[in-house]
Amino acid sequence: MQRVPYGDLLVTLGRILLTLGFEEQRARRCAQLFAEASLDGVYSHGLNRFPLFVSMIQSGAIDIHAKPVFVSGSESLERWDGQRGPGNLNADSCMSRAIAISRTHGLGCVALANTNHWMRGGTYGWQAADAGVIGICWTNTMPNLPPWGASKPLLGNNPLVLAVPRAQGHVVLDMALSQFSYGALSSYRMRDELLPVDGGFDNNGRLTRVPAAIEQSKRPLPIGYWKGSGLALMLDLIAGILSGGRTTHQIEAKPELEIGLSQVFIAIDPSSVDQDATAALIADQVIHHLESAPRSTREFVRYPGQQVAKIRRENRTQGIPVDSSVWRQVKEMSGNSNQL
Amino acid sequence: MQRVPYGDLLVTLGRILLTLGFEEQRARRCAQLFAEASLDGVYSHGLNRFPLFVSMIQSGAIDIHAKPVFVSGSESLERWDGQRGPGNLNADSCMSRAIAISRTHGLGCVALANTNHWMRGGTYGWQAADAGVIGICWTNTMPNLPPWGASKPLLGNNPLVLAVPRAQGHVVLDMALSQFSYGALSSYRMRDELLPVDGGFDNNGRLTRVPAAIEQSKRPLPIGYWKGSGLALMLDLIAGILSGGRTTHQIEAKPELEIGLSQVFIAIDPSSVDQDATAALIADQVIHHLESAPRSTREFVRYPGQQVAKIRRENRTQGIPVDSSVWRQVKEMSGNSNQL
Repeated sequence: MQRVPYGDLLVTLGRILLTLGFEEQRARRCAQLFAEASLDGVYSHGLNRFPLFVSMIQSGAIDIHAKPVFVSGSESLERWDGQRGPGNLNADSCMSRAIAISRTHGLGCVALANTNHWMRGGTYGWQAADAGVIGICWTNTMPNLPPWGASKPLLGNNPLVLAVPRAQGHVVLDMALSQFSYGALSSYRMRDELLPVDGGFDNNGRLTRVPAAIEQSKRPLPIGYWKGSGLALMLDLIAGILSGGRTTHQIEAKPELEIGLSQVFIAIDPSSVDQDATAALIADQVIHHLESAPRSTREFVRYPGQQVAKIRRENRTQGIPVDSSVWRQVKEMSGNSNQL
Repeated sequence: MQRVPYGDLLVTLGRILLTLGFEEQRARRCAQLFAEASLDGVYSHGLNRFPLFVSMIQSGAIDIHAKPVFVSGSESLERWDGQRGPGNLNADSCMSRAIAISRTHGLGCVALANTNHWMRGGTYGWQAADAGVIGICWTNTMPNLPPWGASKPLLGNNPLVLAVPRAQGHVVLDMALSQFSYGALSSYRMRDELLPVDGGFDNNGRLTRVPAAIEQSKRPLPIGYWKGSGLALMLDLIAGILSGGRTTHQIEAKPELEIGLSQVFIAIDPSSVDQDATAALIADQVIHHLESAPRSTREFVRYPGQQVAKIRRENRTQGIPVDSSVWRQVKEMSGNSNQL
């Protein structure tokens, strides 16, 4: 592990994207979205995911020049086609559009079909909160989660993001609907640790905290067992119906072929109903009350987004922790591994 | 346990509401909402909750004549004040309003402050689906769920409802964000059963499947541990900000004083973007695919709402199972226990 300044990461990724043929402005924005994910501590969907992103461009799975195209709409609700463009640029542009709609209609919803992995979902929640509006968005994914009662992964873990703007720190929840991602399972396994709570079934159908047993069975748990299973199904259904795009069962269960996803971006502008401007006060009171909670012996009490803001500050001053082998691989792509 | 025809339940409840002073049309609708909850198998929020509802009217906590009043709005987003009226009538009328907005704007959102317990949340999901639109709604509640890492219940279990219309059976998820409600805990305890999965912490801070231990500690689990805790906070925040109403920490933690809640009702009309009318096909394909899932040994695979539809059919033909003592109590309220 080494630490790399945010600016170095940004420049390196941007240079590679330019080499791959991205337009300059899109290269800059796309690099920024990757670098910010790492800056915020979501390494799995920042630098660490970048090599897969590049290989999917090279394989033709991602069309770097494609931009979302308007399909249909009615006032607050619009359907767009992502044309298999870069997932993070597509999502960024659709949340932007939802925010713009919310300025005039109070609420804006953009459903996006035919897009690709949006990388770090929280990005679009922070984007909404930075614009001063409430953001709600989700994506479907390849099948990676067994429905409750089934033995095979037929649902996606369909990450769900909710964001509330707040001057003293946005409140942003970014969660997949599996209790632990495969990335988290492998981290626990490599540290030779048990999961803190049951994370899935083993091959004998018993709940287990042993990460390797879940990696083998491919039976991670949905959050809340039957409840998260139901929620994953609903999010997939709504994304498919509103976007007219693919649902999880039509998506190939291999990361390098996980393309043609469906997503929903909702922005709500509270200022349109909040004449007496109590929104900021309400948010502060709720967070203050949470922070005053009596602790149980072993745990912490945090609001969603609190830890991200802390890591962001640390990484900005100390540099972003990178996996040395991934960083070397990426520097080699940028063609000047000796200079960096 | 005995079974009572739906019509008898409806007439009995309606008669009591008239006696209490409800206008005739509101008495009929309110009785219907209670009776349908029991018809659909959600007994805890149907007949079994009715005596508490009546006592809250008698104590002045619920104003039977109050109706939601428009406060402010901008195209798709409106804020209403429920004026402490009957929670189910308020919610019914606000989901109706959201549906109406969605017809012209694609999407409608009504935020409702100052209302009361909406009884069975699924009601408003079925309402949206019956109208052919997607429904998303939630309510905050009194504090009954400890935030992850805290030892005291400071969050609500904030039920969340998502509904998708479907000709062969609507898909409706109605879930509180605690893994088990207190009602469920007491049912397991009375049957002398362990919970199927961990449901909370005992007084020593250990996860447990013993329902009585959780009833004592008042530390039920949020779904997905830290994830459901974050989601409960977000739903409370958004409901408070959009409605301008109270958040959980301002609500008294006693069922008979659980008043002045905040709720959000969203309706999305897919027909406004679905020019090629693929929505029905997408929904059917997803459900069909789920139903074809290979079963694990011990469990069932169901879509949200499937079981409700089955119970509804059974209860309509065989009568609604009622707790005899509650039914006797309610018949006595209606003043003609001998006739029924």
